[in-house]
Amino acid sequence: MRILGVDPGLTRCGLGVVDAGTGRAVDFVSVEVARSDPDEPVEARLTRIADAFAAAVAEHAVEAVAIERVFAQANVRTVMGVAQVSGAILVESRRAGLPVAMYTPSEVKAAVTGSGTADKAQVGTMVARILRLSAPPTPADAADALAIAIAHAWRGGGAATPSGKVTAAQARWAEAERAARRSR
Amino acid sequence: MRILGVDPGLTRCGLGVVDAGTGRAVDFVSVEVARSDPDEPVEARLTRIADAFAAAVAEHAVEAVAIERVFAQANVRTVMGVAQVSGAILVESRRAGLPVAMYTPSEVKAAVTGSGTADKAQVGTMVARILRLSAPPTPADAADALAIAIAHAWRGGGAATPSGKVTAAQARWAEAERAARRSR
Repeated sequence: MRILGVDPGLTRCGLGVVDAGTGRAVDFVSVEVARSDPDEPVEARLTRIADAFAAAVAEHAVEAVAIERVFAQANVRTVMGVAQVSGAILVESRRAGLPVAMYTPSEVKAAVTGSGTADKAQVGTMVARILRLSAPPTPADAADALAIAIAHAWRGGGAATPSGKVTAAQARWAEAERAARRSR
Repeated sequence: MRILGVDPGLTRCGLGVVDAGTGRAVDFVSVEVARSDPDEPVEARLTRIADAFAAAVAEHAVEAVAIERVFAQANVRTVMGVAQVSGAILVESRRAGLPVAMYTPSEVKAAVTGSGTADKAQVGTMVARILRLSAPPTPADAADALAIAIAHAWRGGGAATPSGKVTAAQARWAEAERAARRSR
């Protein structure tokens, strides 16, 4: 199952593609950061990001999309841009017939590091380890996009486990999730 | 100039079309409220709204889009949905080659009622009067969408005024805008 993870953003939007194999196997396919110029009108910026997303879907024959769930946080202005990008990408995904999964930042951190409150460096380090990359992907948007794709691969976007059976990886995941919820 | 005014929303999205003539003349063309089912996944809901927008653009041969500028307000959950809808519609507009204008709620209220803090009833009453309708359009999303289109018609989306000359309508508009800014 080829998964495109999206770290939505108007200035930088991470687009990370992985292949989810059996069990916990995840292979790196590609990563890029789509950018838009803050001096352009917002409709031009959004379209640039949506076009980059559509191009990645086509180029890598993506089968599923995982995207960060948008929450209102400290920087309200940034969050509005993130929500607008996510809206455009969700419509794009739906029209391409791709299933979409959404994860909170804590869920993604918990999936790749075991802690819902991990920092950017830990996420980058673990993404590199999981995907057998020589160094953490940069910028952080690239690492985050891959982390979202990995989270989905492990959560159920990848190979299904025979019903009733829980793998060791899934047990760790479930525990990390519970920990993340407690720490919120 | 045929203008489509959009009051963005995930549950109800107002889509109002007017024709801007010379001076302050504005004619009603059509209004509808696109809806989506809160029980559906968000990507399905967004696509339903985006499709309704695209259908209105095509059906009415729209030449310009005016949409409410998204701000973070009290209800954060609602605002996220509004931002997602606006993101999808902005991309749709751009791809259709339509110019887009954005107005704050206060600017729209000031344009149609003279006060940036007018209530829903005042906006509905003035929209009906301006467009020579027998009653205020309902629900409020319909009236708001038409109000946004009217605001754009008067703000510059309609016929241009010879440079250097300010009409009485434009003077009233400018004054209402200043009042709206003061009251913010």
